[in-house]
Amino acid sequence: MEHWQRKHLLGLKDLTRSEIELVLDSAKSFKEISQRQVKKVPALRGKTVVNLFFEPSTRTRTSFELAAKRLSADVINFSSSASSMVKGESILDTLKNLEAYSVDIFVVRHEFSTSALYLSEHTKASVVNAGDGQDEHPTQALLDMFTLKEKLGRLERLKVSVIGDIIHSRVARSNVWGLSKAGAEVTLCGPKTLLPKYSERFPCKVTDSVKEALKSADAVIMLRIQEERMGRQLISSQREYVRYFSLNKENVKYLSPESVVMHPGPVNWDAEIASCLKEKIQPLILTQVTNGLAVRMAVLYLLSEGKKYEITD
Amino acid sequence: MEHWQRKHLLGLKDLTRSEIELVLDSAKSFKEISQRQVKKVPALRGKTVVNLFFEPSTRTRTSFELAAKRLSADVINFSSSASSMVKGESILDTLKNLEAYSVDIFVVRHEFSTSALYLSEHTKASVVNAGDGQDEHPTQALLDMFTLKEKLGRLERLKVSVIGDIIHSRVARSNVWGLSKAGAEVTLCGPKTLLPKYSERFPCKVTDSVKEALKSADAVIMLRIQEERMGRQLISSQREYVRYFSLNKENVKYLSPESVVMHPGPVNWDAEIASCLKEKIQPLILTQVTNGLAVRMAVLYLLSEGKKYEITD
Amino acid sequence: MEHWQRKHLLGLKDLTRSEIELVLDSAKSFKEISQRQVKKVPALRGKTVVNLFFEPSTRTRTSFELAAKRLSADVINFSSSASSMVKGESILDTLKNLEAYSVDIFVVRHEFSTSALYLSEHTKASVVNAGDGQDEHPTQALLDMFTLKEKLGRLERLKVSVIGDIIHSRVARSNVWGLSKAGAEVTLCGPKTLLPKYSERFPCKVTDSVKEALKSADAVIMLRIQEERMGRQLISSQREYVRYFSLNKENVKYLSPESVVMHPGPVNWDAEIASCLKEKIQPLILTQVTNGLAVRMAVLYLLSEGKKYEITD
Repeated sequence: MEHWQRKHLLGLKDLTRSEIELVLDSAKSFKEISQRQVKKVPALRGKTVVNLFFEPSTRTRTSFELAAKRLSADVINFSSSASSMVKGESILDTLKNLEAYSVDIFVVRHEFSTSALYLSEHTKASVVNAGDGQDEHPTQALLDMFTLKEKLGRLERLKVSVIGDIIHSRVARSNVWGLSKAGAEVTLCGPKTLLPKYSERFPCKVTDSVKEALKSADAVIMLRIQEERMGRQLISSQREYVRYFSLNKENVKYLSPESVVMHPGPVNWDAEIASCLKEKIQPLILTQVTNGLAVRMAVLYLLSEGKKYEITD
Repeated sequence: MEHWQRKHLLGLKDLTRSEIELVLDSAKSFKEISQRQVKKVPALRGKTVVNLFFEPSTRTRTSFELAAKRLSADVINFSSSASSMVKGESILDTLKNLEAYSVDIFVVRHEFSTSALYLSEHTKASVVNAGDGQDEHPTQALLDMFTLKEKLGRLERLKVSVIGDIIHSRVARSNVWGLSKAGAEVTLCGPKTLLPKYSERFPCKVTDSVKEALKSADAVIMLRIQEERMGRQLISSQREYVRYFSLNKENVKYLSPESVVMHPGPVNWDAEIASCLKEKIQPLILTQVTNGLAVRMAVLYLLSEGKKYEITD
Repeated sequence: MEHWQRKHLLGLKDLTRSEIELVLDSAKSFKEISQRQVKKVPALRGKTVVNLFFEPSTRTRTSFELAAKRLSADVINFSSSASSMVKGESILDTLKNLEAYSVDIFVVRHEFSTSALYLSEHTKASVVNAGDGQDEHPTQALLDMFTLKEKLGRLERLKVSVIGDIIHSRVARSNVWGLSKAGAEVTLCGPKTLLPKYSERFPCKVTDSVKEALKSADAVIMLRIQEERMGRQLISSQREYVRYFSLNKENVKYLSPESVVMHPGPVNWDAEIASCLKEKIQPLILTQVTNGLAVRMAVLYLLSEGKKYEITD
């Protein structure tokens, strides 16, 4: 059994297949902890985890907060709105100041791509990327992969279609890297204006045909419409987008009965997925939330352990 | 000694007299814990309590937060302003998402009546109603009852007058149900426009004469003026309201010397109670705060235990 | 070895030299704790610390929050924006209400001078002043003193210049009291309009010559420009202030090579200190942050112990 050696988790692009498998295997044990009567282990007792969120996200922050607490870590939530950002301090100064408290792990979210990498290069602490701009959101892809493996038994040769606003989606990007490393075949699907221009850079297929994306799929990941990120000129109208790129009563027929549908949440029902499908689809989306907590516990644990090995070597 | 069987605490209307007594008796032990040098017990270690507040309330939230921490639970504060509500998610979706983390108890506050009941019908976790619209605020009434029993020795045949904006008050409503079940005689008093129209529904007397409400009372509960809830047309002016329905130097004379005055807090001094009475009245109001913590510890404990019985059966 | 007897820490003006030394000596042990693998001791287990902040400050609040958590205390953050202040409650009512939860220590920040003293006179709990108006900010001065002693080996006969907006600075005020008691010689320096009028009240020298302040100094404390506090009429322009009273490439030459520069943070680079000096100066400023946590752990610990002695006597 391999040991985790990495100090940071910035993206799945960097990870090897066996590193990804190590996280997913560890997450299995941590999922079991959250099903116990006493949902708490002393693994990170006396460690300090800081949620350093420069972009609002109650869900992801709460998931990491609870993951850290169930590992018995001390957690500090630090969000930019409440911070001294208003006093003109840079994000690096903020990080250095918090680091001075002997922080073990920073969980970072920021609207700028590669900000997690940037911060990781300037700190002795570990950095977990909790979403940076249009770059990566590795724990989201890891929880998607965990859920697929749990539900369908394997990732190898699994056909996964990611549908929606691909170009702005860090979830899509992390899933392409993670799933392809694990041997799955990824298809990205969206309106032409929301597909990456140089898709040959990514180990996946690209299509603007939802029918094609659905027909072949063992699993579908529907993305959120991020209105706040999307210049209006990229789609002619939301109505039209919903008509052609949402999952609805008509096109759901292309899906094979054994296939599964996931979504990073929160779902805009009737925008990304027709609400008539809610009853069928929501259970797995909630399983994704459960698995997200397990994956984040595993990541915090492995980074904390990795750091320990570093010190004792 | 009876065991607690209930999964939720939604209102006192549902509880039996002996269930109410069980909470009050348990609260006595929990009050003692907060007087120790080490104010902490491991009763809820490894349990997760989520304060799910869709309406701002620092006081009640802090009381539940500290109650949960002194029971060693992991606590997550989730308020709608900081939440993804802005992204158009329903309160039920929010609940289901948090539930997916294996939450044990939700403490819910919401501006809509019966929202606690609604959420309780859709979750495997326990729900504590921390105030829902104009419906109930059971832990407030339980702390009032605890304080009355502690101060006056009994609830049986106690004459309690609740004075103020009755119609909008969940505190009044919960006290009517709780106190009447415990054998007390409740009188509701306020301007005619702020009294319930069909008062025969409630096991209590109703009057618009403050004199009458004060003269007979062993205890008086003065309510807050909730300007934000009150259509202006219901009272001719706040000045007039204060003149006739506040407790002041003149009408306090109708109270017997042995009677006590309470208030759910925070008091608007000179609006609900004249500030010349503050020195005399405030100590008991602060005792209510202390008792509120004890009652909430008891409720969280009993719901957590109740759940355990459910599982082992 | 002396025992700590004080219930509150309101300012350094009140402390004796040996009390200050006791805090600094204790802080040394607590600094060591934050360098361990397990950064947590059970010293304040079962105690309740409330951060009662009526003025926003993420840094100081975070430092106290983490200090309390590493001592295993239960911590409640209570800030006025989220509070029922909006409902017209006074700060004393807020304190009394929280006190009713058997709070052990209040960490208070408020924009009004002497508010910490005022609150301490009305509570059974301990009060730590975390900055009150233009009065004192004792833990900041204690961390400055701790850092000076650690870096330069002594405080006795050390020459310390404090430069900036003296008149509005609680940091300057606390440092004057603390450093002078410890045997250091303090010089306050700033524009004439920002110097105290009756400086003979303070045990220090006063000058408006930065050259003079720098030439003699073993250590310099540069203060923040608090635009929000400063009536614009007091300085002709920020540009002129920066020219004459910032530390920059020109005037830094007056400093002896062995001297050190500190700042309470966050620094407005190029306003108080030229950013070309950042690389050289920032490490010690971050050491101040680290030491601040240690000093605050020491203060919380001593106040908690002091209270225990009070009770057992």
